[in-house]
Parts: sequence; C-alpha cells; structure tokens
Amino acid sequence: MKMQVGILGYGNLGRGVECAIRQNPDMELAAVFTRRNPEKVHILTESAKVCMVDEIESWTDKIDVLILCGGSATDLPEQTPKYAKLFNVIDSFDTHARIPEHFANVDAAAKEAGKVAVISVGWDPGMFSLNRLYANAILPEGKDYTFWGKGVSQGHSDAIRRIAGVKDAKQYTIPVEEALEAVRNGENPELTTRQKHTRECFVVLEEGADAAKVEEEIKTMPNYFADYDTTVHFISEEELKANHSGIPHGGMVLRSGKTGWNKENSHLIEYRLKLDSNPEFTSSVIVAYARAAYRLAKEGQTGCKTVFDIAPAYLSSKSGEELRKMML
Amino acid sequence: MKMQVGILGYGNLGRGVECAIRQNPDMELAAVFTRRNPEKVHILTESAKVCMVDEIESWTDKIDVLILCGGSATDLPEQTPKYAKLFNVIDSFDTHARIPEHFANVDAAAKEAGKVAVISVGWDPGMFSLNRLYANAILPEGKDYTFWGKGVSQGHSDAIRRIAGVKDAKQYTIPVEEALEAVRNGENPELTTRQKHTRECFVVLEEGADAAKVEEEIKTMPNYFADYDTTVHFISEEELKANHSGIPHGGMVLRSGKTGWNKENSHLIEYRLKLDSNPEFTSSVIVAYARAAYRLAKEGQTGCKTVFDIAPAYLSSKSGEELRKMML
Repeated sequence: MKMQVGILGYGNLGRGVECAIRQNPDMELAAVFTRRNPEKVHILTESAKVCMVDEIESWTDKIDVLILCGGSATDLPEQTPKYAKLFNVIDSFDTHARIPEHFANVDAAAKEAGKVAVISVGWDPGMFSLNRLYANAILPEGKDYTFWGKGVSQGHSDAIRRIAGVKDAKQYTIPVEEALEAVRNGENPELTTRQKHTRECFVVLEEGADAAKVEEEIKTMPNYFADYDTTVHFISEEELKANHSGIPHGGMVLRSGKTGWNKENSHLIEYRLKLDSNPEFTSSVIVAYARAAYRLAKEGQTGCKTVFDIAPAYLSSKSGEELRKMML
Repeated sequence: MKMQVGILGYGNLGRGVECAIRQNPDMELAAVFTRRNPEKVHILTESAKVCMVDEIESWTDKIDVLILCGGSATDLPEQTPKYAKLFNVIDSFDTHARIPEHFANVDAAAKEAGKVAVISVGWDPGMFSLNRLYANAILPEGKDYTFWGKGVSQGHSDAIRRIAGVKDAKQYTIPVEEALEAVRNGENPELTTRQKHTRECFVVLEEGADAAKVEEEIKTMPNYFADYDTTVHFISEEELKANHSGIPHGGMVLRSGKTGWNKENSHLIEYRLKLDSNPEFTSSVIVAYARAAYRLAKEGQTGCKTVFDIAPAYLSSKSGEELRKMML
C-alpha cells in the first residue's frame, strides 16, 4: 500500500506538491482539500478526489500525511496546529521571526494528538537552514553568508503591484557578483544590504500613469527597496507575459572558516541552488519530508520537528543498506 | 564537565582532530594513544596525555568518544570493531566499496558492547555523501555528478613515489572546467573519466634518473593515470617544498533534475568545498560527529551509524531552541 498524501490548498505550491508526488512511486495523492467550490478546482491526478475542506475530518483514516500549502501570513499559523490534531502534517512556514512561536503551537497540538508535524520545510527555511547548521557545526570559527537569486520575489512583486498606476509587475532579486566573489575568495567581507543584492523591476503601467512617479515610489519604498540599488523597467503587458511569467529562484549559503592550531588554514563551504520553479522545488523538498514524517509516525514519534531533527536517511525511499552502498 | 575525547593515531588526521577539539569549547582532549614511543610523540595540547596504545583499556571510564585516526587500508578494518567494544568511536573509513562489510563488523561489535560507532565520517565519504542523499531525495529524477579538486591526492602522489628514479612527488587532481560548466548549465552531459578530471604531477627525480622514462611510466600507469590527461613537471626538491607542501583539496557534488507534470522545469543543486587543508577539514567534520555520538550514546542508542542516520541537530553545541531561532 502506497503512502497516502492529502493536499490542503491548491495554488502554485499545492500543484507543485501534486507533481512531486507523481515522481515518487512509493506515494499517492489521495485528495486535495480546498476552500473553493471543488467543482471549479481542476487537478491533474485522475485518481485523486477534490473535496471541500469542511469534509477533511472524514479523511483521518485515509490519509497518512497532510501537506499544508497555504500562506505563512495568515493560513499556516492557524491551520498547522489545527490539522496536527488530526493528521501527520508538513508545512512550509517561512516567517523566520515567528518560527519559535509557530513551533510551540504545533508541537503542543501534535503531541496531544500523537501525530508528527514538520514545519518550515522548503529551501529557505529548509535546505539553506540545514546547510547553515552543518557548516557551523563543522567550522565553529567562521562567517556565514546567504545570497538569494537571481529570482522572483513574490513579496516585492506584490509590493509594486499595490502602487497606484501599476497594472502588473515582476521583481528579481540579484546577488552582487563582486560580493559573492569576495566571499568565495575567503576575504570575509562585511557586507551591507546594498552590497549583497540588487533589485530589478519590470513594471506594466495603467494607461495614463506617471512613470517617473511610480519609479520614485518603488525606489524609496522602505524595507522593500530603499536599502537597495533598484532598477525599474517599464514594459508592455505582452512583454511581461512573454519574458517574465516564470518563477525562477535560487541562491547560495556560504560559510568561510578557519582551522589549525593558529587558525592558519581557510575553508569555504558553499551550497547553491538554481531553480527554474521556486514552488516546484519547494514542493519537492516538502514531499521528501512527508515521507520522513510518515516513517517517524510509524515509529511512534510525536510532536513538532524541523529539518534539523530528522536524520537524512528518512527522506529517501532507499533502505539503509542501499544508501550505504550507493551514496556513501 | 566537558566531553572527553581520545585520539588513536597521531598523524595528519590526529593532529587535525586535536586542533578541531580546541575550537569546540564543550569538549576536551583527554589523551592521544600511539603505537610509537610516547616520549617521542609531541602533541600540542598541554593538558592531554600521550599514552601507549596498550594502555587504552584503562581509559574506558575516562573517555566519552575515541576518534580513530588510522588508515582505511589496514588500520581501521581491524581497529574500529575492536575499539567499538570499549568506547564510543568515530572513524573516517573511506574505501567506498568495503563500507557495507565494515559497517556490519562495527555494528555487531558496538551493539554487543552497548556503544555507538560512527563510520566513514569526513567529506567524501561524509558531507558529499549527505549531499548526494538529500539531492536525490528532493529530485528523484535527475543525474548526479561528483568532481574532486583542485587538490592533492595522497594515493596518486604515493603511486608516483614508488616509481624507480623518483625521489618525491605531489599529484593534483583538477576538475575540467568545461565539464563542470556543462553540468551547471543543466546540459546533463555523459562524461568519461578523462572528460571530468585532469592530473598534474610535480616530480623530484633521483640523481641520474631518466625523466622521459619516469614520465612515460606515470602517464601509462593503469587505474591511477592511464585514463586521464596527465601533465608531468620535473622540479627541484626546494621548489617542491616551497610551493607544494600544502594539502589542499575540495570538490563539488551536483545534482541536476527535473520537476513539473511534464518535467518542464530544471533545477541544479550544488555543494562545493574549497579546503586549504584536507586533513584539518576532515577532522572538523569528525569532531562534530563525535559530539553527536556522545549524545546518541547518552540517549541509550547503540550500534553503527553513518552520517545518513544522524539528525543534523546532534552535531551542534546549540540547543534545538537556539538553532530554530538562529539558523532556521
């Protein structure tokens, strides 16, 4: 019997999870739960059901792991503790500052129900976090760097779209090549926000909008753009659709550290991702951790976990013996 | 009370472990065990003892983890199972093909004695293995690549030194830049041995030796050089000492994979190491896993583990709460 997976929320992430499940022969999508009218939600997997989220309680015996594909701002803080009372769950909660609070809420719910919950799964938080941890444990004396991009920042694109006169927009976060090279050369630079990333915006204006005013509003927007060197390009709606409809992303986590009795030797650890589709890669990480959650639950473990708490072997469909033979 | 560490074998790796312990305030070097005359072995840590290996049994109560710093060819296959009967142990066994057999021997010994043993710790096997596993679990449909270097291969340097007429030698393994670029571009190339790495040799001849004959012998040596494009430089002993006395190494593990309902999106995961000192970096990984072994043993776990079986949080001296707050 294949591991039965449920998806709650069918946006970019939910669809990515659906695709990732198909690439893992030991699992099967059982159902997608939605707040929309199920008849209007068209999924790709013929064998799976689309259900209203209100029906989810009748699925507790039929689903091994429920993957929560909502947003971190309002959905997950409520959903993850709620559904950890009924299912083993995974989420991709990515509001770094609120992780401790979210962990505590989910942990209490999952422990009470005897379920396993894995939070903040994806690439950042997720694979980038793992690489920060491993690199820090190996090189206790050193310096960490995280660069993001080149990739689309959904949050920054949304911020531009909220400006009066903007019809549509896409924002790319781009690491500064010189800063990255300095880190890779072991120079251990101190880098300001401006020195690490630039921001490039492609904006479609409403008819009659004032381009200069929009550009000024973008470039001076606090938190989002004011601390960065920002370039704004005004383009047509057709051009935006043709050249900027993808959701690529990526980045690098680096740690530069010293070893030796007199710290005479330098080392560089770099983890790099280059992703055509941010939501599909995030989904692929989530699905691997869904397998881990399923196995941990079978072993009788309960409570909230993060990527830090899960031994790598749990992610793979291969046995320990196969892994040692093929990958060690 | 700090975690008490023992070192068996005081070569490059043993000295690296000694240095790494000093960078981790929660541990302390208790003793170095040697097959040589202890009076002739001069270690760097004033508070630690140097003892003959015959005395090691009297240290079972005084050492939390014993780090085995011998070689994989003859030392570790015998030492690791032997000392896993007395101590929690770590080794860096790196004969990939013999890992299953070594695992079985060590597992039996450690389980019988109620100890934890962690084998094949370092960067390859070790961190590279981990990255192969994570990347394969995330992108089940894809292709793996491992490149080594630029770095010194001890085995290849030794092979050159065994040739008649050679006084000393150093061999560098170098990844082929074009091959690496093709992988990074997502071209998924099929690469032969020759297309992935070149070999560069710096050789000091004995007086009167025939350079052309030595060069021919190197370039045609089966397994070591015959399948590679090899360059041989003849240099003076002084030049070898001045420019080639370091032990740098490194390399990259890459996985290129597809996601999406029709596999329409490509992703690249790359893990890269650039190391001034191969033995010191290996030692730093070993010491982090020594911490993990100590904690696993305290929890009552027993038997043989690899990097695949150990949750990342065990490697860090920070608490779960701190890790979630600072690194997730």
